[in-house]
Amino acid sequence: MTKQKLTLVKVGGKVVEEKDSLADLLDRFSKLEGIKALVHGGGRSATAMAERLGIETKMVDGRRITDQAMLEVVTMVYGGLVNKNIVAQLQALGLNAIGITGADLNYMQAVKRPVKDIDYGYVGDIVAVNVEELNLLLDKQVIPVLAPLSHDKQGSLLNVNADTIAAEAAVAFAEHFDVELVFCFEKPGVLEDSEDDSSVIASLNHTQFKALQESGAIHAGMIPKLDNSFAAIKRGVSKIRITNIPGLQIGGTTLLPE
Amino acid sequence: MTKQKLTLVKVGGKVVEEKDSLADLLDRFSKLEGIKALVHGGGRSATAMAERLGIETKMVDGRRITDQAMLEVVTMVYGGLVNKNIVAQLQALGLNAIGITGADLNYMQAVKRPVKDIDYGYVGDIVAVNVEELNLLLDKQVIPVLAPLSHDKQGSLLNVNADTIAAEAAVAFAEHFDVELVFCFEKPGVLEDSEDDSSVIASLNHTQFKALQESGAIHAGMIPKLDNSFAAIKRGVSKIRITNIPGLQIGGTTLLPE
Repeated sequence: MTKQKLTLVKVGGKVVEEKDSLADLLDRFSKLEGIKALVHGGGRSATAMAERLGIETKMVDGRRITDQAMLEVVTMVYGGLVNKNIVAQLQALGLNAIGITGADLNYMQAVKRPVKDIDYGYVGDIVAVNVEELNLLLDKQVIPVLAPLSHDKQGSLLNVNADTIAAEAAVAFAEHFDVELVFCFEKPGVLEDSEDDSSVIASLNHTQFKALQESGAIHAGMIPKLDNSFAAIKRGVSKIRITNIPGLQIGGTTLLPE
Repeated sequence: MTKQKLTLVKVGGKVVEEKDSLADLLDRFSKLEGIKALVHGGGRSATAMAERLGIETKMVDGRRITDQAMLEVVTMVYGGLVNKNIVAQLQALGLNAIGITGADLNYMQAVKRPVKDIDYGYVGDIVAVNVEELNLLLDKQVIPVLAPLSHDKQGSLLNVNADTIAAEAAVAFAEHFDVELVFCFEKPGVLEDSEDDSSVIASLNHTQFKALQESGAIHAGMIPKLDNSFAAIKRGVSKIRITNIPGLQIGGTTLLPE
């Protein structure tokens, strides 16, 4: 049986946190054909809310140190403020969205990251993904909106990187759907020259990526995203694109299997 | 065809906001047999968070004036902090919970309350309830956890009283289920003497309630809850009980049709 197509869009960075760009993104997202889902970040909003509450933000290698106070902040901001505003805006566009975390439906379970050199606190590493009920909702034209939070099934929420949520969800959905994962951020794609937005690489397989990485052509910040993406392709995701809002439908860099 | 029983528990006041009493409530809730759902408040947590953010809480007749800044607070606290912590704790108890607002699945739509004498701001009056997708999830043993928020289907969330959410959801579920609605709060039931917790009235029909109201025996704070409850019974809810945590399974005051 041919699988139905599912487009899973991950939106992060400024795109999700500035009112105008979010409205633009959601409008374009609403026009994508077929079955679809959204994963969002919200780090800037969390940092701003933490600051208003007098809680200091500490980042190590781009990851947020999440103590009990910061866990409350990200639970409020990712699970409440950002997630529910996206849902309400999608409903206004006629899309039947539902906003959830990994704790909801137990769809994504994690363990608290073991402490080696750094104690990240309440940060989760994914251990199990179950999209049975989400598949049921997707078949009913419901649009899942996934916040970057998971839980340990022992009563605690855990902070999880939104790119990781997107890749893990895409792999799980790939059992039932032909999944295209689209990373939507500020840049128009993977760039040959990180200073030149017109130097988008149209397509990239793993061998080409490794060659570009060795030559130092690819911006360091893109490397974990690309490593995770190629891993997701190996695990069953049909296609991955990296693009910005104007490229949502067809633009950007397409990652290909060998 | 005989309808299946659904127990909808509304928990509010201190019960939901103190760690130990919430854990006790959720433990007892997890032991209720059959299909079930939970509605929660969170007003005290919202007031506390608003205070930390330097936002003043204004109440009129027990209702929260909800300007833009307060809407952000209740969206974070009800939709995020309180809701997701309950979901994570239910998952730890082996219950497959999903936490949502009225915007999610567009299950409860409201209009911003028209300004008469008082401008309540972003407070909603319910205009439409659709539990089609929730019924599907309930049939799969999923436990909906409903936050006291709705939306206007024009992109704005709206603050809604949790008792109202509970009554409207109960009426909507009553089309497919035999619904028992249980209001769980600090007092053991409707009291003949508001100073004496042992004076619980075991059962009450509408005529008896009106007689007690006229004699001044019923505490003023209970009257809107009882008015709403009897209205819900007229609209198809099979049974309503008002009780505290120890009475969750069988105790408290049972409201009856005539």
